[in-house]
Amino acid sequence: MIVEQYFEEYEIGAARTSFGRTITETDFVVHAGHTGDFFPHHMDAVWCATQDIGQRIAHGTMIFSIGIGLTATTINPHAMSYGYDRLRFIRPVHIGDTITTITTIADKRDHPKRAGHGVVTEKVDIRNQNGETVLACEHLYLVTRRQPLA
Amino acid sequence: MIVEQYFEEYEIGAARTSFGRTITETDFVVHAGHTGDFFPHHMDAVWCATQDIGQRIAHGTMIFSIGIGLTATTINPHAMSYGYDRLRFIRPVHIGDTITTITTIADKRDHPKRAGHGVVTEKVDIRNQNGETVLACEHLYLVTRRQPLA
Amino acid sequence: MIVEQYFEEYEIGAARTSFGRTITETDFVVHAGHTGDFFPHHMDAVWCATQDIGQRIAHGTMIFSIGIGLTATTINPHAMSYGYDRLRFIRPVHIGDTITTITTIADKRDHPKRAGHGVVTEKVDIRNQNGETVLACEHLYLVTRRQPLA
Amino acid sequence: MIVEQYFEEYEIGAARTSFGRTITETDFVVHAGHTGDFFPHHMDAVWCATQDIGQRIAHGTMIFSIGIGLTATTINPHAMSYGYDRLRFIRPVHIGDTITTITTIADKRDHPKRAGHGVVTEKVDIRNQNGETVLACEHLYLVTRRQPLA
Amino acid sequence: MIVEQYFEEYEIGAARTSFGRTITETDFVVHAGHTGDFFPHHMDAVWCATQDIGQRIAHGTMIFSIGIGLTATTINPHAMSYGYDRLRFIRPVHIGDTITTITTIADKRDHPKRAGHGVVTEKVDIRNQNGETVLACEHLYLVTRRQPLA
Amino acid sequence: MIVEQYFEEYEIGAARTSFGRTITETDFVVHAGHTGDFFPHHMDAVWCATQDIGQRIAHGTMIFSIGIGLTATTINPHAMSYGYDRLRFIRPVHIGDTITTITTIADKRDHPKRAGHGVVTEKVDIRNQNGETVLACEHLYLVTRRQPLA
Repeated sequence: MIVEQYFEEYEIGAARTSFGRTITETDFVVHAGHTGDFFPHHMDAVWCATQDIGQRIAHGTMIFSIGIGLTATTINPHAMSYGYDRLRFIRPVHIGDTITTITTIADKRDHPKRAGHGVVTEKVDIRNQNGETVLACEHLYLVTRRQPLA
Repeated sequence: MIVEQYFEEYEIGAARTSFGRTITETDFVVHAGHTGDFFPHHMDAVWCATQDIGQRIAHGTMIFSIGIGLTATTINPHAMSYGYDRLRFIRPVHIGDTITTITTIADKRDHPKRAGHGVVTEKVDIRNQNGETVLACEHLYLVTRRQPLA
Repeated sequence: MIVEQYFEEYEIGAARTSFGRTITETDFVVHAGHTGDFFPHHMDAVWCATQDIGQRIAHGTMIFSIGIGLTATTINPHAMSYGYDRLRFIRPVHIGDTITTITTIADKRDHPKRAGHGVVTEKVDIRNQNGETVLACEHLYLVTRRQPLA
Repeated sequence: MIVEQYFEEYEIGAARTSFGRTITETDFVVHAGHTGDFFPHHMDAVWCATQDIGQRIAHGTMIFSIGIGLTATTINPHAMSYGYDRLRFIRPVHIGDTITTITTIADKRDHPKRAGHGVVTEKVDIRNQNGETVLACEHLYLVTRRQPLA
Repeated sequence: MIVEQYFEEYEIGAARTSFGRTITETDFVVHAGHTGDFFPHHMDAVWCATQDIGQRIAHGTMIFSIGIGLTATTINPHAMSYGYDRLRFIRPVHIGDTITTITTIADKRDHPKRAGHGVVTEKVDIRNQNGETVLACEHLYLVTRRQPLA
Repeated sequence: MIVEQYFEEYEIGAARTSFGRTITETDFVVHAGHTGDFFPHHMDAVWCATQDIGQRIAHGTMIFSIGIGLTATTINPHAMSYGYDRLRFIRPVHIGDTITTITTIADKRDHPKRAGHGVVTEKVDIRNQNGETVLACEHLYLVTRRQPLA
């Protein structure tokens, strides 16, 4: 769905919560096949059982990709994602965990060079079924202003 | 392949270049299906042709996931990835582009709290077939020291 | 396998039973990724456990697609599928259920406009491992006559 | 996104248009693998080139599944899909075509037996990039009334 | 489809030809992801263009798996596949080639130890759209006899 | 990783052990979809429970493809795989088994016609989590000599 929003209209603290999604063994296998990372931490249940981790753990890139994907429900044609800061893997995700993504507008500031745009920082908090954060990061957007700065 | 390396043995400037991988229309469809992000920027060739971008562009999370996956050829059991900093989407990637990942040890420093570990920063530079950087970030590792700090 | 059959040779009541196929969690994830429908009814085990349905339920379009796919073992070059009538989702299908498709020639009639073709209706009955119908529909075929009507 | 709507609030003629999605060779291969239907009409480019159809044609079940999937953007917790009527394959879809789904509330009527529900019929029109209908059907919903009939 | 056949009923020279299947870029990506073999010979179009091979070549294990899969249309409950001999990659397969599998009963002999079974050798010949063999092997079956040897 | 090795440098008895990989229900579904082999032995848990095998068994072509894929970690540009001999399915593989591949250089000999190449035979032994061989074969390589035979 398209939801138009200019820089001026972003409100600090505005938050959205995604649907939940159960991370399945299928997702592990698909992500390994998609990225080529077949490390035993993700793919070898027998070896994992001999390690501290005890069981297979999700690829960090997968929880990031699916967690961000969960937020891909509305498009703002005036905003362009240009990167992420402070991406941290806080807790492991295992097969059968269910994740949900909460995004909150955390900051908005003038663009250092472009009078027609501002920079919006959205805090991304991916949580498991126990409400614990498993991955956190800051999503950076370049957003068009309704009125360019003089 | 397992390649053991303690904190003391990381050398600033040491670099590795991955194999190349051509990003296909299949990868676009697989990533959309894996993450649930079916935005027309990635999936609707007709609409893209009417936009400035001209053609479908790869999901940022895909180039990140595949670019990092390309480096997943050796495991260091003494290093643990804990996050990424300054992840930036520099140039769009289109169907048929071929990406390669160059990683360089950029920094190593004491861990603020753990005498037995250090922090290693690896610069990640994902390039297309023209040698242009399409995505850059810093990969952060917690690495065991051979000799804990006194 | 090719099995040639003209309109005249279809017999009301002729039936075929497909092989069985266990519907797996993988199929749920693949279908969500194929269609873009990630509704929590199919993908969020935690939420489903709080609802009357109790557990994830298969997409209706998936049971239809796989159930019809199970019948795709013989090709009749004289018949062309042109649609379905009265497609009904009778019972939910859960992960681990095994479905089988029974098709029965239910009706054959002259085509209202084409002397060279007739219309054949095949009743499709998709059942679970308990013999209960989970999905029913009527498959419509345009079939060439060996002898055009005068 | 959740959009609550009771039977009384459905308006005849209300329409929604989905995003577009380009149907790729990947989708053909994924659907064959998902359903087990590897008929040469979908999978053998050489054979198709010798036939009237000229090139590979999409599985009918795929265009139905993806076309319906395109509409899966808002959930109405008061409505339950129970089937489809008059599903017709109007035109073939080929690799590279882009489809869009237009849904229109076409009919609402009392449920013959349940005072607390009504039946809503949504017309589904899946079109290609030329605006031609490729698949049409009627989607049937059982919808809770805000006020049960006396 | 089930086609029962005892050892005595196999006839030397009996042959079957499968449907054709076009090998797509999707198949390359799926097979790499399924097996973890992302060697540049299969995945890096730019590098391949600099080599004698000129373009990406299919994994040998893929042509074998798909070529054998093409024959999986009838099940003989009295025969059990136990291996393959003389599997040879004769010609490369590229994206867009169409393969067909021709199987011929080439040999039948007593089992050295089991009076109730015989050994059947089926010659497997996987060909491209030009009729050239791309992969050949011998498929070995253990088949129940209708009448055990005295 | 590229590891250059000429014919003269191959040593009989040199062995490598791959990482392990747990064979999942997802792999069964992916392989069926990739090859088109949906036989109930692999796909119908209910039917399998009524048979001697008791549960679904992996496709032979899958264990071969994944087992060989596990060894695809180093490329020797001087060696070219040209086939396999004596491929045997020794034990069934079930969902949840973990396989590992051990390869051993078993033989090296002059090529009958090419003075610049030799033939190397690598014994492939795919084992389950109990150390039992599930599939064995011989992998044949054509390898360039550092010094052509006189």
